[in-house]
Amino acid sequence: MKAAGAGQKSASLGKEIVGRINELAAISETPEHLTRIFLTQEHRAAADLILSWMRSAGMRAHLDAIGNVCGRYEGEVAGLPGLMLGSHYDTVRDAGKWDGPLGLITAISCVADLHKRGRRLPFAIEVIGFADEEGVRFASTLLGSRAVAGTFDDSVLGVKDSAGISMRDALTKFGLDPDHIGAAARARRELLGYAELHIEQGPLLEALNLPVGVVTAISGATRLAASLTGMAGHAGTVPMLLRRDALAGSAECIVAIEEFCRTDQAGLVGTVGYIHAVPGATNVIPGQVSFSIDIRAPSDAHRKMAVTDIVRQIENIAKRRKLTLQLDVTHENRTVPCAPWLKSQVAEAIAGEGYRAFELPSGAGHDGMAMIDIADVAMLFVRCRGGISHHPDEHVDPADVDAGARVLMRLIENFRPRDAVKK
Amino acid sequence: MKAAGAGQKSASLGKEIVGRINELAAISETPEHLTRIFLTQEHRAAADLILSWMRSAGMRAHLDAIGNVCGRYEGEVAGLPGLMLGSHYDTVRDAGKWDGPLGLITAISCVADLHKRGRRLPFAIEVIGFADEEGVRFASTLLGSRAVAGTFDDSVLGVKDSAGISMRDALTKFGLDPDHIGAAARARRELLGYAELHIEQGPLLEALNLPVGVVTAISGATRLAASLTGMAGHAGTVPMLLRRDALAGSAECIVAIEEFCRTDQAGLVGTVGYIHAVPGATNVIPGQVSFSIDIRAPSDAHRKMAVTDIVRQIENIAKRRKLTLQLDVTHENRTVPCAPWLKSQVAEAIAGEGYRAFELPSGAGHDGMAMIDIADVAMLFVRCRGGISHHPDEHVDPADVDAGARVLMRLIENFRPRDAVKK
Repeated sequence: MKAAGAGQKSASLGKEIVGRINELAAISETPEHLTRIFLTQEHRAAADLILSWMRSAGMRAHLDAIGNVCGRYEGEVAGLPGLMLGSHYDTVRDAGKWDGPLGLITAISCVADLHKRGRRLPFAIEVIGFADEEGVRFASTLLGSRAVAGTFDDSVLGVKDSAGISMRDALTKFGLDPDHIGAAARARRELLGYAELHIEQGPLLEALNLPVGVVTAISGATRLAASLTGMAGHAGTVPMLLRRDALAGSAECIVAIEEFCRTDQAGLVGTVGYIHAVPGATNVIPGQVSFSIDIRAPSDAHRKMAVTDIVRQIENIAKRRKLTLQLDVTHENRTVPCAPWLKSQVAEAIAGEGYRAFELPSGAGHDGMAMIDIADVAMLFVRCRGGISHHPDEHVDPADVDAGARVLMRLIENFRPRDAVKK
Repeated sequence: MKAAGAGQKSASLGKEIVGRINELAAISETPEHLTRIFLTQEHRAAADLILSWMRSAGMRAHLDAIGNVCGRYEGEVAGLPGLMLGSHYDTVRDAGKWDGPLGLITAISCVADLHKRGRRLPFAIEVIGFADEEGVRFASTLLGSRAVAGTFDDSVLGVKDSAGISMRDALTKFGLDPDHIGAAARARRELLGYAELHIEQGPLLEALNLPVGVVTAISGATRLAASLTGMAGHAGTVPMLLRRDALAGSAECIVAIEEFCRTDQAGLVGTVGYIHAVPGATNVIPGQVSFSIDIRAPSDAHRKMAVTDIVRQIENIAKRRKLTLQLDVTHENRTVPCAPWLKSQVAEAIAGEGYRAFELPSGAGHDGMAMIDIADVAMLFVRCRGGISHHPDEHVDPADVDAGARVLMRLIENFRPRDAVKK
């Protein structure tokens, strides 16, 4: 099925986008391992390159108060509110080249295409490249988007990186004024919405053989630290019925968490990623075991209910086994639902390109988690190979890059602001 | 119920035994943490003290070629074959004072009591204090009893301790000749059997409110190293049904091992003491998990069958979850069954003292594991508080010390050699 109305635009943006992905990936701390960290010379070089792309796409472009690159393509008249598109251009260490840049570069290419065709829309388009989403350097994520949303926490300025340099000093050295980060904040009235294209970072679209998908929500997460204490003992001398084995009890909890999430029908995921058994010797019954629990769901109510049910199950297991339970919530993130009016336009664009508009939650965090404070949010996921991300093997098929660009282009050209939809 | 025929002997040996336990416990590497290691000056001092106790109990006594203390109390005529009693007098680091010494000191006190009463039996009594059972210094256990059994492995002489001193050099420095350890070996025809009193090191007698118990066998053990490999992934982005979670799979194995052993009726115990999950981060699905399995049973056939069944269950779990399984046997110890004719005399002695002759396997290793090669073996367990051992909190109630001594005394005085039983 070929997209109707695609005749006016260039046959394919995919080639240009992949070329720019590679060009940006060459800007790295070391040539072998892609690493591009906040407020470094690589940050500077990448920003300069992106600004040049924005300008050649017909945008006014500048670096904002926290180091985000900001481009603006005016609408039919100057000064109209804008649809904001974008993603981040920092990376984790030894990263893949798609996580972040694909969304930013695709947005620029779409604008470039509009510009080439001399097309102006009844709204402005803003493209933003967030300077720090991953939070590698100062262990605090979403710094770029929080600054834009006006929710940047000034206390983070005192945090030091592993070399002992504070964020305040790093900003100054980069040529930014740490006392004026507030200047990066945007007003809600300036924005018609925020739409981000991003690689899925999961295996679902691949399993379903779909190049793209529409995100329902950025799942909220609850993390807990669990600890079960029983009685250490000799692996040979304590009969099974007299044991209070903290590891066997923890294993039962892990199986129960998995089973609870596996039988859920609403996108719940639960993970025990860390476990530590004490004393940890082959011939000693573990007396104490600690493990982590990570629970995510596309709705806060569903996640909270699930956490309650899982905690109750763990409490029952501990009680039955006469184990002492310590259970603490260590982290909690709200769910960011994608705005139905904007999400449905993403779905229409996907369908318009001839694909099934499959809905999936985002289990990973994204800049939309901060942007929700000043704009309605939507996300378009692009399939990545094997669901692999944060790894050099991260890969997107060029055909899928092109599919993502076509969908985004269609979303832009058919975009109706919320007020227009309501009418 | 009071023991019949106990009139002739002293009312209680318990007080003397506890006094000597404390006296021996004072011989330690450091005053705060009881540690008495093979071929050290503490070994020497302890040996001298024990030899003096043996001699004052009417025994000829000497240090043998590996540093065991050996005492002999002649029977009605000199040179008769002997019933051998004993245990070890080395300790683990930061040990309890009962593990080993209780059996040795009780045996000496029983002989002293016979001697005091001028009683000679139709067989000799040999009391042995093994110099190294725990294997702390050279990571090789049962050195003393292996030398007596003639199964000492000369290759161990080259093993070095943590200070770089080889066993050969340590023996020489102690005044022993490493090339004549064979001189410690005894002949089967010299021994009528080997009976050892030892603390249980487990909680069963305490749970049953019994001061003593008769051991059926020293359980054999199989240890396995298991490793499950799945697929690491983002804790948020991989739906439950697409996961190959190595930790959830391992947890299912651990629960299955526990359940299999818990429902066994023949003394089987299974323990997973060690577990390691990779990468081990809260927000990453574990891709690889290693864990240990320790399986023990009072019969080799039962243990081997259990290992086979458990391995099959683990293989099925791995297969169903699409996890790659690596499973290796890292250690295997045969079961040492207690000789029925000798075990039944221990049981008679227990019953004769008015206690229920409860039978239990020994899950922990003991010198009988080596002695079986030259003598039939039996063991008498004495209750210890909370099943705690290899720890300063190791404790035996003085009344139980006395009960153990009375049972051992009765065993000695009523002992009939195997040939006499068969007739």
